[in-house]
Amino acid sequence: MNAELIAVGTEILLGDIVNTDAQLISQGLSELGINVFYQTVVGDNPDRLRHVIETARDRADIVITTGGLGPTLDDLTKETLAAAFGRKMALHQPSLDRIKDFFANIGREMTPNNEKQAWLPEGCTVFTNLWGTAPGCAFEAYGKHVLMLPGPPRECNPMWKECAMPYLYKLAGGCIVSRNIRVFGLGESAMEDRLHDMMERMTNPTIAPYAKVSECFARVTAKADTTEAAEKLLEPVVKEVCGLLGDDVYGVDVDSLEQVVGDGLRQRGMTLAVAESCTGGLLSKRITDVPGCSDYYLGGVCSYSNGVKMDLLDVKKQTLDAVGAVSPEVAEQMAEGVARALGADVGVGITGVAGPGGGTEEKPTGLVYISIWCRGRCHTRKMQSSLGRDRVRNQAASTALDMIRRNLFSSKTGERI
Amino acid sequence: MNAELIAVGTEILLGDIVNTDAQLISQGLSELGINVFYQTVVGDNPDRLRHVIETARDRADIVITTGGLGPTLDDLTKETLAAAFGRKMALHQPSLDRIKDFFANIGREMTPNNEKQAWLPEGCTVFTNLWGTAPGCAFEAYGKHVLMLPGPPRECNPMWKECAMPYLYKLAGGCIVSRNIRVFGLGESAMEDRLHDMMERMTNPTIAPYAKVSECFARVTAKADTTEAAEKLLEPVVKEVCGLLGDDVYGVDVDSLEQVVGDGLRQRGMTLAVAESCTGGLLSKRITDVPGCSDYYLGGVCSYSNGVKMDLLDVKKQTLDAVGAVSPEVAEQMAEGVARALGADVGVGITGVAGPGGGTEEKPTGLVYISIWCRGRCHTRKMQSSLGRDRVRNQAASTALDMIRRNLFSSKTGERI
Repeated sequence: MNAELIAVGTEILLGDIVNTDAQLISQGLSELGINVFYQTVVGDNPDRLRHVIETARDRADIVITTGGLGPTLDDLTKETLAAAFGRKMALHQPSLDRIKDFFANIGREMTPNNEKQAWLPEGCTVFTNLWGTAPGCAFEAYGKHVLMLPGPPRECNPMWKECAMPYLYKLAGGCIVSRNIRVFGLGESAMEDRLHDMMERMTNPTIAPYAKVSECFARVTAKADTTEAAEKLLEPVVKEVCGLLGDDVYGVDVDSLEQVVGDGLRQRGMTLAVAESCTGGLLSKRITDVPGCSDYYLGGVCSYSNGVKMDLLDVKKQTLDAVGAVSPEVAEQMAEGVARALGADVGVGITGVAGPGGGTEEKPTGLVYISIWCRGRCHTRKMQSSLGRDRVRNQAASTALDMIRRNLFSSKTGERI
Repeated sequence: MNAELIAVGTEILLGDIVNTDAQLISQGLSELGINVFYQTVVGDNPDRLRHVIETARDRADIVITTGGLGPTLDDLTKETLAAAFGRKMALHQPSLDRIKDFFANIGREMTPNNEKQAWLPEGCTVFTNLWGTAPGCAFEAYGKHVLMLPGPPRECNPMWKECAMPYLYKLAGGCIVSRNIRVFGLGESAMEDRLHDMMERMTNPTIAPYAKVSECFARVTAKADTTEAAEKLLEPVVKEVCGLLGDDVYGVDVDSLEQVVGDGLRQRGMTLAVAESCTGGLLSKRITDVPGCSDYYLGGVCSYSNGVKMDLLDVKKQTLDAVGAVSPEVAEQMAEGVARALGADVGVGITGVAGPGGGTEEKPTGLVYISIWCRGRCHTRKMQSSLGRDRVRNQAASTALDMIRRNLFSSKTGERI
């Protein structure tokens, strides 16, 4: 079976956004063993959209569209697909109810054009949209399969994984199971180097390396007739990969470093507080991205000015005068200060130059000091990055989390506080 | 004139990489006033590549390809394009010399297949590749223009800007200019409702509505012979759109709400501090996303626990006991408390139930109270959302920023503190 992806949206043709939906869906289809022969992007133009859809209908087994499901006049995907595949449109009452509820909940009036989102091709399988208003759907016609997903990645991403992939899974007739081995502290090429021989040797499961923002992961994927058989194939291979990557592995099939750190703190009954300068609240935001974090997270202080460092975190004026705010000494005083001020077992202090301005020869842009304080003992690291404000900040926050993991939880590391 | 982009590469169809070349080139074409009607991705397969190229030849004025110019057997772009446009291939000696020099410089032997990169369509304009080995090129045939660029972004990016754009600039002789009118406090469909008559009526400039995370924007785009003429067309239309959308417009061609609020505070010489509960540092993170924010941002407190609310922000125990942490009273005390603790002119307090757990009948998930305190006066709003943890938090942070804008900067609003 082969699939063709059609993204509908003038904003992609104008270069306002990049078509990340296509990457996500292509990766998933690759896992399912479905070939993608073409990806097409077309704008909100009825004739050109019809032309692209008819071309895909005539050459692909599966047509997957993203975008064009919204309430406005230029959202034409559903109507055009239904026409090309000989389907009528019908009002789907449960979807309309959901949209009405949505507007009622946010206390806004539902304008009449929103009803359009509840009209779907007759007899289709509806993909409920829990992340926005426009439902997706799938149907079969002329021996082809058609799937429609909303365009915004925050809706497309979960709907692809939770609705569309299981739908296609049934069609594909086999079974694919993956494990993601998450790694921090090792670059993608260094990871690939360690796994190279294994990657060459294996055919089922396969091993593929991937890079993410300031971290990477290895995906191990097995194909078999049943989930159980696939999982049996995975087990020894995942173990071998974890052995080769050692303590740089922070988890298998975990959500994030912040989730792993949170679980570790909860298990040990420990509490956490953070003091941030250059990361400006990003670490606190990431810790609180995890639902239920109030079990272990007490709070944080963003001390962007020196006054706040002194007043709220008890950083010494002499230290600031002598070595400056970006220094290991200030990182340590921030870590200890926030732990004491908030009464936490563990304190984090981050101070640095995120850029783009503010760097000097002695303290260049991208220099960050990170300190972990735990019940009277402290561990500090220096980080230097040249990747720009956003990535410096992200890497500093990740490094702080990773330092907690290695120092407090790991049985192997030598970095123990 | 219109253009079609064709990316050649199986790695895009597998989802290993995202097609950022298409975004880059589309942005540039938009600046040049050249419409992009289609973007296509196809793999390294001769038949499918030929089919895609012939389709583009028959429907576009300009065909631009990325990828498939390398030395290996499956690099077929040049040969296939030349055949589709009736051109012979010829050895381009200066390119061959460059490739030989390249290998001599890195001290590696040039394998014979590398010579393939110096074969180009006869009579083409050669785009010298200073960032890799494969040259790009352009030619005209059958009244169409064909341009080829290498696929790796580090080569495609500079060659597009330094070789291809100047080549097209000469052809284009027209100009397109857009203005983005950024809106908060109005949904996309409500915005379209207000602009509907104008959108129907206008042909140049055009008006298009777009949704972003918790906000939306209207793009007004004009075409003319010169930038000045396009800007002259835009001016009255932008003014009319802003008039229809009123105080919900927070800026035209601005980066973000946090940027607008930061600029407003800087102009007025005011300082800001924030106290966050359910947003957990997100507002602070967004404020510090803006370089130079230390001019007006002193810092913040993430008071995830009640202890921190009392100890650092002076929230009263009686209030917490009487009405609970999620209440307008606590939001107000947090806003005032953080402003006083950090010595800021403006304080923000956010408290709510981000979910997914923690909601009750009286205080459901998605309920958030937001307070702005400014020099002794306070303004508080209640927000209710059902969009899930991430979006509740984002919307709460955006609402806080928007409240600062409306209360402190706007001359029209009735929400003044």
